[in-house]
Order: sequence, then structure tokens, then C-alpha cells
Amino acid sequence: MAPVAPRSGDAVFASVDRVNSELFTLTYGAIVRQLLTDLEEVQEVNNQLDQMGYNMGVRLVDEFLAKSNVSRCVDFKETAEVIAKVGFKMFLGVTASVGNWDAEGTTCSIILDDNPLVDFVELPDTCQGLYYCNILSGVIRGALEMVSMKTEVTWMRDMLRGDDAFELQVKLLKQVPEEYPYKDDE
Amino acid sequence: MAPVAPRSGDAVFASVDRVNSELFTLTYGAIVRQLLTDLEEVQEVNNQLDQMGYNMGVRLVDEFLAKSNVSRCVDFKETAEVIAKVGFKMFLGVTASVGNWDAEGTTCSIILDDNPLVDFVELPDTCQGLYYCNILSGVIRGALEMVSMKTEVTWMRDMLRGDDAFELQVKLLKQVPEEYPYKDDE
Repeated sequence: MAPVAPRSGDAVFASVDRVNSELFTLTYGAIVRQLLTDLEEVQEVNNQLDQMGYNMGVRLVDEFLAKSNVSRCVDFKETAEVIAKVGFKMFLGVTASVGNWDAEGTTCSIILDDNPLVDFVELPDTCQGLYYCNILSGVIRGALEMVSMKTEVTWMRDMLRGDDAFELQVKLLKQVPEEYPYKDDE
Repeated sequence: MAPVAPRSGDAVFASVDRVNSELFTLTYGAIVRQLLTDLEEVQEVNNQLDQMGYNMGVRLVDEFLAKSNVSRCVDFKETAEVIAKVGFKMFLGVTASVGNWDAEGTTCSIILDDNPLVDFVELPDTCQGLYYCNILSGVIRGALEMVSMKTEVTWMRDMLRGDDAFELQVKLLKQVPEEYPYKDDE
């Protein structure tokens, strides 16, 4: 059987069940507000959001692989492009770009100009230090870990802090080779 | 100018920004899990979800009125139909039905067969008494309060408790007549 071609982010997004973006934005806002109330330090809120995102990334990668027809990526470079062009489109309905590669090809940035998580969001002064969208870094980390890539994900720019875009640096720490007990057919 | 016709739930849903339903489901699940960890009693979790929903309903009603072209509903009966057919479709992408009216026309049920909030959700035995989707009752209560209807919203059936559908009873407690300092044009 011929391999099925990977689908574009637009095609995948059109084919999945969706809910209203504003409902999602307000729901996410309710989480952040709850954590800010419950936890004492903003840094703990960042950690908790990251952990929630990690747990979600571990789950979402299955739907991603099933719906996108993306098969094994050749390298980290291709993986980053797929996250930005297909992953973000499929889940949030927006496209991200990839840039700022280092010479080794193990660190890059995923850059978002449009981010539905922050519609209508303004942070009060008491939230200095909060990475409001930190769930996203966790999702990327969790999803990549499921395809054997251990990464560190760090915010470089954040529009809620006055920057001109959202920029997440993704650094590949370790790539665990997958071993199969069987040979591929081809 | 001729009045603009109200739009169908499908048409409105097609025109709004949307995100992936599974992402939303997992995000909502993360809230419930967080509240279960933070709060001691399941009843407190129910209350907190209801309160979060209320705050969201108060906000969402604006988008609803702006996007749906629904203008003043004649009575509570029409309001309930609009919530079920246009509101649920516009925000969650599913349609609900209305039934179980009392003789006075002040109490009815909104019935959901399909509910994206509970995809993949199974409640452990420790969560007896939890109304997992309680955010929905709060959203309805909050949204209706913004159009001057004070209501009480109660779960009658819950598929996570083994029922065959989700049924929310909406009881109109008080309708505050809106007063205008000016006359309508017509």
C-alpha cells in the first residue's frame, strides 16, 4: 500500500471537531485565575501550567499522529516545522513559524504572532513573572517526549510582557533512538 | 433599515474562530482535576465550577448577541430554544433540545446527547457527587442574568452518573423588566 501523504495544517484543522475559540480562551483564563488564587508564588503557577501542558501534550500527540498522517520526521528540524505548521494549526487554528536555529541544528524558536490564549487578556501588575501561556511550553515538551525527543522549552518573547511576538525556544537535549523488535516491511 | 434576520446555529458556528475540541476537553479536564486537588469537598468543586461558568456566561453573552443577530426573545420559551439551538451550537458545536416544560412555562429542561466536555472522561469512585460539567449550569445562569432573567439551573441527568443524557433544568425565578430611557424607533 502506498504511504498516505501528510496532510496540511489547514486540511487537518478542517477535519477535526472544534469548539468556539472565545469559550476556550475564557476556560483557559479560568484555570490561570484559579491557580493564581490557590498558589502563593507566580513561579509555582508557571510550573503548574507547564505540568498541565505536559500531561496534555502526552495525550494530544496521539490525535496529532492519527489525524495528520505525519509519520516519522527525519530530524529535529523537520519536527519543529511540523509542530509549527501542522500542530499549532490543528489545535489552536493558528500557524507558527520556525526560526533562530543554532549552528548545530538542535535549538530553534517557534514564533507565534497570533495566539488565541491571550484574546482579551491583560495582566495586572501583581502578575509580574507570570508566563500566562506556559501551558504551551508543557504541551510541546510532553508531545515531543512521546516521540523520543527530550527537550527544554523556554519563553524568549511574550506579547503580554510587551514583546512583539510569542517566541518559544525549543532545545533538543537528547534523542532516544527507537528500537523495534521487528523489521520495517520496506 | 430592515432588521437583520437571526442566524442559524450552524451558520454562526461556521463564522466564529474555533479551536480543536480535544484540546478544549483536556483543558477543561485540567481545571476539574486542579479543583479536586485543591478543594476538600466535592461540593466545593461543584460550586467553584458553577461560579467559573457564571463569570464566563456574563462575558459570552456579548459575543452571542453580536454574532447570532438574535434580538430580544419574546418570552422564556423562546429564550430556552435559542440557548439550545443557537447557543450550544455556537460555543460547543453541538445542538441541544428543550423539553419537560411545566404548565406555567417557567421551568424546562435543556437536554444534551452529545457533550464535548466529557470525551474520554471516566470518574473514579472518589468523585461521587461531582457534577463534572457544572461549568455549563453556571454559563447558562450567568448569560441569562445579563438579559434580565434570574434563573436556577439544576442537573437532572448526567451521563457520567450512568444516565442516558445530560439534562439541565432551568427554572425562571424572576424576570426583571428592562427599562429604557428612550423609546424604540419602531
